[in-house]
Amino acid sequence: MTANDTPKGQQPTATYDSAFLKACRREPVPHTPVWFMRQAGRSLPEYRKVREGVPMLESCMRPELVTEITLQPVRRHDVDAAIYFSDIVVPLKAIGIDLDIKPGVGPVVEQPIRTRADLARLRDLGPEDVPYVTEAIGLLTRELGATPLIGFAGAPFTLASYLVEGGPSRTYENAKAMMYGDPELWADLLDRLADITAAFLKVQIEAGASAVQLFDSWAGALAPADYLHSVMPASAKVFDAVAGYGVPRIHFGVGTGELLKLMGEAGADVVGVDWRVPLDEARRRVGAGKALQGNLDPTVLFTDKDTIAAKAREVLDAAAGLEGHVFNLGHGVPPNADPDALTRLVEYVHTATVR
Amino acid sequence: MTANDTPKGQQPTATYDSAFLKACRREPVPHTPVWFMRQAGRSLPEYRKVREGVPMLESCMRPELVTEITLQPVRRHDVDAAIYFSDIVVPLKAIGIDLDIKPGVGPVVEQPIRTRADLARLRDLGPEDVPYVTEAIGLLTRELGATPLIGFAGAPFTLASYLVEGGPSRTYENAKAMMYGDPELWADLLDRLADITAAFLKVQIEAGASAVQLFDSWAGALAPADYLHSVMPASAKVFDAVAGYGVPRIHFGVGTGELLKLMGEAGADVVGVDWRVPLDEARRRVGAGKALQGNLDPTVLFTDKDTIAAKAREVLDAAAGLEGHVFNLGHGVPPNADPDALTRLVEYVHTATVR
Repeated sequence: MTANDTPKGQQPTATYDSAFLKACRREPVPHTPVWFMRQAGRSLPEYRKVREGVPMLESCMRPELVTEITLQPVRRHDVDAAIYFSDIVVPLKAIGIDLDIKPGVGPVVEQPIRTRADLARLRDLGPEDVPYVTEAIGLLTRELGATPLIGFAGAPFTLASYLVEGGPSRTYENAKAMMYGDPELWADLLDRLADITAAFLKVQIEAGASAVQLFDSWAGALAPADYLHSVMPASAKVFDAVAGYGVPRIHFGVGTGELLKLMGEAGADVVGVDWRVPLDEARRRVGAGKALQGNLDPTVLFTDKDTIAAKAREVLDAAAGLEGHVFNLGHGVPPNADPDALTRLVEYVHTATVR
Repeated sequence: MTANDTPKGQQPTATYDSAFLKACRREPVPHTPVWFMRQAGRSLPEYRKVREGVPMLESCMRPELVTEITLQPVRRHDVDAAIYFSDIVVPLKAIGIDLDIKPGVGPVVEQPIRTRADLARLRDLGPEDVPYVTEAIGLLTRELGATPLIGFAGAPFTLASYLVEGGPSRTYENAKAMMYGDPELWADLLDRLADITAAFLKVQIEAGASAVQLFDSWAGALAPADYLHSVMPASAKVFDAVAGYGVPRIHFGVGTGELLKLMGEAGADVVGVDWRVPLDEARRRVGAGKALQGNLDPTVLFTDKDTIAAKAREVLDAAAGLEGHVFNLGHGVPPNADPDALTRLVEYVHTATVR
């Protein structure tokens, strides 16, 4: 049986038995698996080459290009998982929201969502809205063989932050003002986004993704009580909606040390940790029964080989005895990181953790 | 005795007995004192008016203008303390570093500090380098009467981040690469900056400042172990250098939940907390013997009056029973905040906490 004719929600045995999926399930692994957030991207010259002249959103909608970009870091670095190349705003674009990704700026939404009437613009998403996703994942699973593919979506809060602000923000003033000042509108907005996000992840899982990562990139801007009351219900709805597939669900946000326990309780099987919280402390916060992912400071990549190895060793030491650890950076690969440093880091983690 | 003829390092009785300084010393207070980080600034129309046509750094070097700007929020909001109007990079400019504050960008350093040879550019700072500070604080203490003036400086790590990066950064790649990759150069750089910062604070205290706040704005980018080994020694040197004056020493950084204990141990009498960590939890982390400052989410200012009061009430409730609490926002006043909302917030905190 090949990946291509695997029934919905089932993994081919070799993929199921990969180090990455075993670690997500907190089973014994032959070595600590490793992949990198934003591993497919500007740090790779082969990525910059194939993206030449292709706008970001368009690149997410061309199945052959998505496949090539997703595979590039797997070929180059020998990472233990691929992550589907996409952008957080792709499902919003797919349902007709007028937005674009401006180079050097980020996602810009032509008409921000600010009122109840605006919610009508957030219609349901179905597989027919994202045929390129189904096609690309079909191509990918054939090429990847036993290497698992991680599906990708932005979490409701992070999507809402772009929709309400109209673009990137450092403070999320408008989004948080809605959250504090009109909690019912806010809850309805996040609930709509939860449905769209869940549908987008389902498409990816049904096409063959072996795990999913929900990125709540900006949740770290929230106080725990606000996350608990105003954000977590929507994230939990997304996780619940895909629970039946049995694929590991990873949850990550930057600067979320105060939220790790809640982000796990939202329904994650694997909690991603940035570099600010050592993994042994993260384990105490998250509690038993969940794997952890992380958490080397990405700026370490700008040092020499020995320093990188020493800092990676510190991460592995802090993770020693954890029942499930997926090695990763504590945030995405910096665009100007040296790809060779990443390749060596994968080799180091693999070699240092052979069991 | 008036403020003007108070000997060095001593406060006039009325100032010494102010609610703000009492709270910093964890003594009983008539009401919870309140001031706002960045209270003197763009949120005030009277500030925008007096700054018209005056570049930022120049505005920090004109004693009458500094005095007017520092006094504006005291007059308007009835806050319990003034904070000396300055910029984090002023002491660096004063010793001849070629830098400027570019509107919409931030501090830009013409030649970043990257090598050991570059350290020679960081000469000592003396009162003669910042005569406008001594003059402005003389004017201010006369005008302020019993209202305490808080001195202001950037902490060594935050200064280093600008000097090494050459400008604002979201990732501090170059600074952290130096910290990880050349720890001796890094330590020497931070030690030089500690001396400059301490000298800058001494000038302010000797001129009449009743407290000092050391802003380590970007320390939240650091893992606790890195802060402990590579940053805290320099911050501790600054605090030690001004310990003899007996004025309260406040320490604040954004996103520093993981560092609160260490930032207190560096030598702070008052630990500033952003909105991500509730004050009762901050108390557990910081331990006894130190006051806390904070921590209303600044984005709450963009909601209605009742919501602002309710969220301020939550902060006061979390601080209930603390032996020392200075009410503040969890970060600076947003430039587009409504000044009337701030005035009402001061009134609310004062009224709600009359003892």
